[in-house]
Amino acid sequence: MARVRTIPGTSEYLQNHPLVISDPQEARGRWQEHWPSPQPLHLEIGCGRGRFLYEAAKVHPERNYLGLELVPEIIRSAVERWSAMEDFPSNLRYLWIHAEELPEIFAPGEVDHIYLHFSDPWPKNRHAKRRLTHENYLNAYEQILHSEGQLSLKTDHPDLYTYSLMTLAQRNWTILSATFDLYAEEPQDNIATEYELRYVEKGLPIKRILATPPLLND
Amino acid sequence: MARVRTIPGTSEYLQNHPLVISDPQEARGRWQEHWPSPQPLHLEIGCGRGRFLYEAAKVHPERNYLGLELVPEIIRSAVERWSAMEDFPSNLRYLWIHAEELPEIFAPGEVDHIYLHFSDPWPKNRHAKRRLTHENYLNAYEQILHSEGQLSLKTDHPDLYTYSLMTLAQRNWTILSATFDLYAEEPQDNIATEYELRYVEKGLPIKRILATPPLLND
Repeated sequence: MARVRTIPGTSEYLQNHPLVISDPQEARGRWQEHWPSPQPLHLEIGCGRGRFLYEAAKVHPERNYLGLELVPEIIRSAVERWSAMEDFPSNLRYLWIHAEELPEIFAPGEVDHIYLHFSDPWPKNRHAKRRLTHENYLNAYEQILHSEGQLSLKTDHPDLYTYSLMTLAQRNWTILSATFDLYAEEPQDNIATEYELRYVEKGLPIKRILATPPLLND
Repeated sequence: MARVRTIPGTSEYLQNHPLVISDPQEARGRWQEHWPSPQPLHLEIGCGRGRFLYEAAKVHPERNYLGLELVPEIIRSAVERWSAMEDFPSNLRYLWIHAEELPEIFAPGEVDHIYLHFSDPWPKNRHAKRRLTHENYLNAYEQILHSEGQLSLKTDHPDLYTYSLMTLAQRNWTILSATFDLYAEEPQDNIATEYELRYVEKGLPIKRILATPPLLND
């Protein structure tokens, strides 16, 4: 992640913006109240500057989208950019928390889909716990994902791809599909993120994993 | 695997049949001498009654195929059945050994492709060492596979699929692709095995993994 310049007043901006959920603990178990209609909840963890969410929410008005980002200046930039669009979709909201807090803000099964897109690979072994597919995070996702929910991961980083397959399999997730070079197969339903477009332009292969959580009493 | 009736004289039959390599240790490092032309060596471990090999060898005359099977009565049945065919392909041979012996009979890098098709899943944890994707077997495959070689696995068994993804990722193999339901995507290049046809007829999803071995000095 590029270093981000601290912008004064960002916390206040985010806490008062109508598209940013400012009291997520209060929403636990009744997240659907934050969108016009109750629909499947799709959560992107680490949404960055938010291009994927904006495009996806327009393509899929039958889903409710939520973008989570830890860095306040980045989520502010996403909110400012996309909310200024005339066609900003009504099924998109943002959230500014750390992914570790997920089980405190979502009730069991409340999330239908989790996206991890070009997450920081944290290549050094001593930073393995920070990878968003470390077993501690998978444990959190298992608590909040619906039993028929899915996790989808995209990365350009071969080691994060292999590491994620290992930790998901170790925790008995079902790997619906995994591919080392997504664009070699040209999937129909792919919505590219900003990072993805840059990597594809450079000719770097994008890797993707689709998985479902283990059965609770398996 | 169904229990197999012992047939007297089977060892002698196999040791004297021209399509069965009877002195595999002698072939180490010069396997190509056993086929009419030197071509990429494709090895099926646990070839059973051999339908896949027969079909694949006809479709790909530009490869040399070798079928390995532990149970003598089963490999005898394969040899008898397919060698009686008028169009028996000249690029197909059989081998009657235990997969543990692989590094003793192949030189490093001598094998270009390994197939594991509907291997016994050995579902009990205490039998994990017998699974053909246990780390001991992967270690053997790493010794004999060409650095740009591939392993492909098919199974109908969800646990063997997930276990294999775990052990392959743990040993830093590259998972080129994995899919939980092969026929949902209808791959163009698929050649069905006998087990596979039976499972597909029953509507059971076939799982597939394609992987390449880790770099030796990685």
